[in-house]
Amino acid sequence: MKKIYTNNLKISVAQMSPTPMNVVANLSAIKDYINKAKNTGSQVVVFPELCVSGYVLGDRFEYSDFINELQEANDTIREMSEGIVVVWGNIVSDTTKIGEDGRIRKYNAVLIAYNGKWVSNGVLLGFLPKNNLPKYRIFDDSRHFYPAYKLVKEMNLELNDFFKAFEINIDGVIYKIALAICEDMWEDEYSIKLSKIYQKQNIDLLVDVSASPWTLGKWHARENMLVKRVKDLNAPMLYVNCVGLQNNGKNLIWFDGASVFVKEDGEFVFRAENNINNLYSFSVADLKANNSYKQKSEVEELYSNITSAMYEFYKDFNKVVVGLSGGIDSALTLALLCAVLPKEKILTVNMPTRFNSSTTKDLAKKCAENFGVEYKVVAIDELFEAQCKVLLDSGLSSLNTLVKENIQARLRLQQLATISASYGGVFTNNGNKTEVSLNYFTLYGDAGGSSAFLGDLWKGQVYELSKYINLINNKELIPEGIINIIPSAELSENQNVDEGKGDPIFYEYHDKLLLAFVESRIGITDILVKYEAGTLEKYLKCEEGTIAKYFKTTAEFINNLEWAWNAYNTEYKRVQLPPVFLASRRAFGFDRRDTIAPAFFSQEYVTLKEKLLTSSDTAT
Amino acid sequence: MKKIYTNNLKISVAQMSPTPMNVVANLSAIKDYINKAKNTGSQVVVFPELCVSGYVLGDRFEYSDFINELQEANDTIREMSEGIVVVWGNIVSDTTKIGEDGRIRKYNAVLIAYNGKWVSNGVLLGFLPKNNLPKYRIFDDSRHFYPAYKLVKEMNLELNDFFKAFEINIDGVIYKIALAICEDMWEDEYSIKLSKIYQKQNIDLLVDVSASPWTLGKWHARENMLVKRVKDLNAPMLYVNCVGLQNNGKNLIWFDGASVFVKEDGEFVFRAENNINNLYSFSVADLKANNSYKQKSEVEELYSNITSAMYEFYKDFNKVVVGLSGGIDSALTLALLCAVLPKEKILTVNMPTRFNSSTTKDLAKKCAENFGVEYKVVAIDELFEAQCKVLLDSGLSSLNTLVKENIQARLRLQQLATISASYGGVFTNNGNKTEVSLNYFTLYGDAGGSSAFLGDLWKGQVYELSKYINLINNKELIPEGIINIIPSAELSENQNVDEGKGDPIFYEYHDKLLLAFVESRIGITDILVKYEAGTLEKYLKCEEGTIAKYFKTTAEFINNLEWAWNAYNTEYKRVQLPPVFLASRRAFGFDRRDTIAPAFFSQEYVTLKEKLLTSSDTAT
Repeated sequence: MKKIYTNNLKISVAQMSPTPMNVVANLSAIKDYINKAKNTGSQVVVFPELCVSGYVLGDRFEYSDFINELQEANDTIREMSEGIVVVWGNIVSDTTKIGEDGRIRKYNAVLIAYNGKWVSNGVLLGFLPKNNLPKYRIFDDSRHFYPAYKLVKEMNLELNDFFKAFEINIDGVIYKIALAICEDMWEDEYSIKLSKIYQKQNIDLLVDVSASPWTLGKWHARENMLVKRVKDLNAPMLYVNCVGLQNNGKNLIWFDGASVFVKEDGEFVFRAENNINNLYSFSVADLKANNSYKQKSEVEELYSNITSAMYEFYKDFNKVVVGLSGGIDSALTLALLCAVLPKEKILTVNMPTRFNSSTTKDLAKKCAENFGVEYKVVAIDELFEAQCKVLLDSGLSSLNTLVKENIQARLRLQQLATISASYGGVFTNNGNKTEVSLNYFTLYGDAGGSSAFLGDLWKGQVYELSKYINLINNKELIPEGIINIIPSAELSENQNVDEGKGDPIFYEYHDKLLLAFVESRIGITDILVKYEAGTLEKYLKCEEGTIAKYFKTTAEFINNLEWAWNAYNTEYKRVQLPPVFLASRRAFGFDRRDTIAPAFFSQEYVTLKEKLLTSSDTAT
Repeated sequence: MKKIYTNNLKISVAQMSPTPMNVVANLSAIKDYINKAKNTGSQVVVFPELCVSGYVLGDRFEYSDFINELQEANDTIREMSEGIVVVWGNIVSDTTKIGEDGRIRKYNAVLIAYNGKWVSNGVLLGFLPKNNLPKYRIFDDSRHFYPAYKLVKEMNLELNDFFKAFEINIDGVIYKIALAICEDMWEDEYSIKLSKIYQKQNIDLLVDVSASPWTLGKWHARENMLVKRVKDLNAPMLYVNCVGLQNNGKNLIWFDGASVFVKEDGEFVFRAENNINNLYSFSVADLKANNSYKQKSEVEELYSNITSAMYEFYKDFNKVVVGLSGGIDSALTLALLCAVLPKEKILTVNMPTRFNSSTTKDLAKKCAENFGVEYKVVAIDELFEAQCKVLLDSGLSSLNTLVKENIQARLRLQQLATISASYGGVFTNNGNKTEVSLNYFTLYGDAGGSSAFLGDLWKGQVYELSKYINLINNKELIPEGIINIIPSAELSENQNVDEGKGDPIFYEYHDKLLLAFVESRIGITDILVKYEAGTLEKYLKCEEGTIAKYFKTTAEFINNLEWAWNAYNTEYKRVQLPPVFLASRRAFGFDRRDTIAPAFFSQEYVTLKEKLLTSSDTAT
């Protein structure tokens, strides 16, 4: 039996929320947690990766005054370690060496100190650099940090001689504690596998400090990884992840915490609450199996994380303005805001023109009433009229329908921007991922806003969340009418909800098709191949009969498919969106790299299309 | 003497402009150039890096139908190599293996075929993967491609046994041609140095296929690198770079060609024209020293590249609309467009409110007349009035000056967006880098547009380019009044050009300060340290006396410095900008990674500031 059990090691987990760029605030929070940990009698306290600086900071890692202060913070924290082992993540810089970015060399490091002194592993004094530096999705570690394996090479060492556990005498017992940082434990795709190295060292505990963003359902992969690792290591692991909201300008990234202690047999015996900035203290021998998290449904998980993130994003604004159209997206945005902000901070605005039905106007009003928030009507029809007149007077021969639709959307943005600024506040972007995928929005119109919290949720998820909110409130907060009405922009006579004229999007089909395009990176060729084989519905996980329901002929199907593929690939609008909250396997923004270029149609696609159209011609 | 000289090898350089994502068009261009090269009697023809796909394609490299078609294109090109050695850059995929992005493994490769067959180097048949995969600035190679050195490891080879020259018998002579791709030759910052490996192989020629973006003055570094490499290699190098415009959604990236042949002694004996898509054919023994490019001034270089890129961006639109204010930025945008587009395609629009002086209105009109383009006045004062009234009627108690200013800017965007859409065209963003650095623009107002071609030019460069245009045209095309007037947004009574009330930006100082912040990544601490030492002007390369001219006291200096630093770090507006044309060492967009977070003030800064303010208090 491991010494940590027989000696009942007392550990504190500081699942903190680092304030990006605010060293003073983070140091103060760290000090506070260290003191609390000492007061509970803990022998070890562990903080997350890059907890002094924040993790997602763009190129601000290139400023040397910032790096110097982070480096100094390490000594400050070391001095706090009197009577307690402190493990934390921070930058370690080496001003005598140059990194691969041509600037002061920086390691994304885990540090360890005890009784005011650095702990050594025989090779390194008090720190270990991160080795696996992710560069996929939103991750940019390899842009800024110098990986451990290059330092190993520079020091003329073997990996086995570098990645050594740190031996510490705590209250008379010598523990071998191995350290790792986040991606180091996600080792399956990497050539260097720390668990294989530490395996041979008979360690008592592996401490993994992380800054691992939340995405929907990722906890499955995370827990599977942790179970594999403790078995590889034949040792327990303490996994400490941060919480809070960080961003890269184009994505809002939520960290969910979910720190755990996993025994060497794969049993989870400690679970921190998700999404909570808190200190947890326990004695290792007292821990019992805990599988609570697994019971959450997807919609619960989504709701919990998105509302936590929205609170962090909006909490410091005086006023958050929501353009409330009577449609589902703005209603859900309002509902989510109301879950986390005081009602006085929320202002809803309905901005009708001649094209808005009393159906949706009434629904918007009812929705605001249900949530008990201020509701304002700013009719923009006269402004719309005046705007059209000015342009026609200036010599434009006519304004077509699309142009007029966009005028209205931009007029609405003008009201929201002005009203929110007048209150010193912000306004929301309410677009969902289905619309964003198709670039189905008006640039400088409904494309605007401070943040797009629904921008990574498919329309189907928008409905699910809306129904869930009514369910947990046990009340029709979002009016059923909003949930049942056909989605429509109501920007022209052709978009009339009362006549069933809505958006040109068949959500139950397009949600799945676009998910294939965006998240699974399946191109149009593969879609048409599956269509020909008669397996597309199964492939996309659509209900049987969906395709026949919407498309009477092969020509109609192909026509719509090409419309969706072209619309998806029309990026010039999307690149000007506000930051999108990251929820899925691939979000628009920085998670998915853009280019403004025409859609690609392979020769295989062109040939297959021709064949299908010819044979269907013959059939008719 | 090398065999290529004694046998007078005949080479063609295909300095092509790949159309991103258009495999059919690129294959057709390649075929055309191969035929032309054959017709000139060339024995070798060389194309740039990734010339079948384009280089900057975001995550579109993740679609397997695209990758498959690129792979097939390699066989198509191989078949074209009857009677001529063809060297080109393209994806080589290995469907049996997984890359580091978890998808089909892709090499960014250089390929070589002759007489319809792949040429071997004894290890690899017909291709070599890129080894150094850049991840700094805009580069994302390491996200998508598998590096050579990992393949070397997988094959259990030594580097020296993998990077072998390709031996080819051309018309009875055996040549040893070594291959490399772009960053492979920028080896100084990398641990693997191909020139050191090829050095030992007594090669006849190194062929380097590149996709190297233009930035101002980069040719210096590029030529220095090439000279170092040929000396390292003791062999001549043929460097073939692509031309054309590519983008990552947030930056427009121009490739300038500037392909060269450099002899082993460092002499440049062939230079393709910059920015021109063309085939160049020559016999190696006929080449003579050519140092023409070095004579270009910075402003010439800037003009040549920016106009080439603007042509590519705008050439296919029916109409390009410029909001012409009577200020320098919009005048320069117009002048640059007029240099490359037919006048009928350009429409200028002046959109005055009560705050616009007749001075600027007259200047705008005169400017449009000078360039002979259509000029339209769309007065928006009534719309402004109506807009304010609607909001006041709706219950807003008042609209402050800033709010009213932004209403006007957004009204202008509404006109530009509507007018350009009515013509099936686009409108320009005219903001300069000084304004973008300070986030001194209105979101959904002057922040909008299809592209920001001046967004990486400091205000000083805007003036230089403007004067240069008048100079080369030998005519006051941009009215002197526009060049001499004080820059002002003219959005309120406080911004009156006739009373000398302009923007709160001291361009000769702020240009340099912001350049330090943005391009040199120098933080506020270092600036204040230099200020204290009395060396700031020298450090920033400002004229002596500049600081004293604008700031009477230390308190004023610090106050303004903090305003600039805070404004620079206020990213939430900047992230919604259209793509910025990349011209400098660090452009906003994807070249500089963002985060929306407060500005960092180090403890060193805070202490120094306190000291300076206290001592200056005492002094007064």
